Amino acid sequence: MNWDRLVAQRAPEIHGWLKATLPALEQMWAAKGLIYLSNGAPAIEQIPIARLRQAHADAWEEPEEALSYGDGGGYPPLRQEIARRMAGRGVSVATDQILVTNGSQQGLDLVGRALLDPGDIVIVEGPSYFGAMQAFDAYEIGYRVAPADEHGLIPEALEPLLYEEPRPKILYTIPTFQNPTGTTIPDGRRRAILAMTRAANVAVVEDDPYGDIYFTPDPVRPLRSLDPDVIYLGTFSKTLAPALRMGWMIAPEAVLRLAFWSKEGIDMMSDRFVQRAVVRTVENGWLDHYLDGARAFYRERRDALLAALEREMPDGVTWTQPEGGFFLWVSLPEGYSSDDLLALAVEEGVGFLPGSCFFPEPAPHRGFRLSYPSPDSETIAEGVRRLGVATRRLLGA
Amino acid sequence: MNWDRLVAQRAPEIHGWLKATLPALEQMWAAKGLIYLSNGAPAIEQIPIARLRQAHADAWEEPEEALSYGDGGGYPPLRQEIARRMAGRGVSVATDQILVTNGSQQGLDLVGRALLDPGDIVIVEGPSYFGAMQAFDAYEIGYRVAPADEHGLIPEALEPLLYEEPRPKILYTIPTFQNPTGTTIPDGRRRAILAMTRAANVAVVEDDPYGDIYFTPDPVRPLRSLDPDVIYLGTFSKTLAPALRMGWMIAPEAVLRLAFWSKEGIDMMSDRFVQRAVVRTVENGWLDHYLDGARAFYRERRDALLAALEREMPDGVTWTQPEGGFFLWVSLPEGYSSDDLLALAVEEGVGFLPGSCFFPEPAPHRGFRLSYPSPDSETIAEGVRRLGVATRRLLGA
Repeated sequence: MNWDRLVAQRAPEIHGWLKATLPALEQMWAAKGLIYLSNGAPAIEQIPIARLRQAHADAWEEPEEALSYGDGGGYPPLRQEIARRMAGRGVSVATDQILVTNGSQQGLDLVGRALLDPGDIVIVEGPSYFGAMQAFDAYEIGYRVAPADEHGLIPEALEPLLYEEPRPKILYTIPTFQNPTGTTIPDGRRRAILAMTRAANVAVVEDDPYGDIYFTPDPVRPLRSLDPDVIYLGTFSKTLAPALRMGWMIAPEAVLRLAFWSKEGIDMMSDRFVQRAVVRTVENGWLDHYLDGARAFYRERRDALLAALEREMPDGVTWTQPEGGFFLWVSLPEGYSSDDLLALAVEEGVGFLPGSCFFPEPAPHRGFRLSYPSPDSETIAEGVRRLGVATRRLLGA
Repeated sequence: MNWDRLVAQRAPEIHGWLKATLPALEQMWAAKGLIYLSNGAPAIEQIPIARLRQAHADAWEEPEEALSYGDGGGYPPLRQEIARRMAGRGVSVATDQILVTNGSQQGLDLVGRALLDPGDIVIVEGPSYFGAMQAFDAYEIGYRVAPADEHGLIPEALEPLLYEEPRPKILYTIPTFQNPTGTTIPDGRRRAILAMTRAANVAVVEDDPYGDIYFTPDPVRPLRSLDPDVIYLGTFSKTLAPALRMGWMIAPEAVLRLAFWSKEGIDMMSDRFVQRAVVRTVENGWLDHYLDGARAFYRERRDALLAALEREMPDGVTWTQPEGGFFLWVSLPEGYSSDDLLALAVEEGVGFLPGSCFFPEPAPHRGFRLSYPSPDSETIAEGVRRLGVATRRLLGA
């Protein structure tokens, strides 16, 4: 067969999770004994295995109901539990405004399917989550990159991008403990951004995988708490386990209806048995209690990473101070590239994702992502020591 | 927000599982005590609950590995088990030619994403599975309907459709125990069809949810056993349980690579824990042994349905004789519509999906789908008795 004639025009836009293709990345994946400091998964110690195991066993109490077709929008008690949790974050939603998805990743695809035509424009933060761009890319779109600082998106810099032609359809943002920077948009900026997007009639997609992992006394209120037109994506991947593939979308009726039907055509429904197991895991306030411990755990690791950077990094290197989530963003002095740093870092036995991975076009960038959930504090210290050696080599410091 | 400006051009093509919108269908879904004779789910008695439950419990033996990210193409032992099962059907595939999907439904979407641009043409059997059209419709395509008889697709009628402009990209077929007709394309026709599609460079998508449910001494060999360019979709929904959402795609490298990356962008991976549970359910030949019993069970129900039709249906009504699968197709005499029959049937307390549900355009049709897995033999007998009453009312017989 001549498949070249048969594949869709979008085929070149269908690609792996990272667009960046650097020899240093290949060397990093192949290296033995390397300390990897950009893992986006929760710490394995923080996956509540015993509770999940018991909940999965308990979920077999009504197998005949659970094992057939049904519940396209999601298992109603799970949607109720999600609504209850969202209320605790200041978001008031009815059960039928919630669609259960296969992780928040499927929410990204459903947003693309509902809203994006070829040539449409999505505004993303610079830098942003590569997986969102992987999802949106398949819809043959273009991007505008909105500048961000240590407080996230800058409203004054965003506003003109909303009116450039062709007019954008979506602002995609991770406003709370952002991936990859760890920054959080403060309340004043949030209100300004929403006023601007509403005036420009641009849909806001709020991706919030990390909102439950806060180190402040209180959680951050999502954009969705300020504007019922915000499309909100949540997930249990960071708080329970990635492999469960359990996330959710909250959206206005016009979007949710399209997302619901799209999901039905795409995979009919999510695993109904696992949905029941998730309810039994989180119910009766168990997850809230559990997360208290998880927050303390991740906060300790964040502190270990910040202390190690303070200790090991040469002058001129800066980094963000995350108040939650899994990541922080290190910036080399102007004129240096984290692609180049990675090549040296791999030689020293440490790896990370360079800035080129976090933009629609993988150009070299002076910033790069570090994460703290997975390595223990000793490993973080040793990894950053190696990173300090590589950085001094790069800077000639 | 003005969502009308924001939704994609494909939005009107995103729709629920049935395009047909008949008052009689609404009445059927709302009716109490109605006997529904078109259910596409396996019989609840045939879902191996005890085995699945034990397998799910056993799958917790390696939770740390199973609960994080990984295995985008699927859990390797599951892919090996699928390869072994396919070999038993005459299909030789390597593990890395198999992609685990969320049921075969996700395989349909991945085919659409890899191959279909707006305005492209897909050839479907007339009648065909509504869920495939639901999946393909979102890619803003058109259809050609290929005539079929009691032996499935008719090669001579198919051939000119392959060369009409615009040239089609895909022939979508359920060649074995077809949904909704229960017919099976015989070997000679299979070879003729594949020679034609190869000559015309049209991709063949073989949907095979029912191939394991055969009432003949030996299984039917898939199209894929005759041509390695066939894209094959399989599932455990009909042999284990629909809610597990476990299916697979076998495809040539050019298509599988796009499907793999697409799935990564769509939902990253299927539930890794459930994949392990499925391996532990089917391994060591258990599923083969189990299916011996399932085949006998479904065969008995098919016989009950055929006997009831023989007994209750007036002259002039005909039906197919399925050698496996879940469905048969009843045809009213020329000039009568199964939409009209449904209205009378619901009055008599029996329901089914009329022919209008199984075509790209939901026009009235004299045929309709019956299924035998779910009701027991007594219920089948009573349902067909009611259907006979309705049919005689329609025909004035």
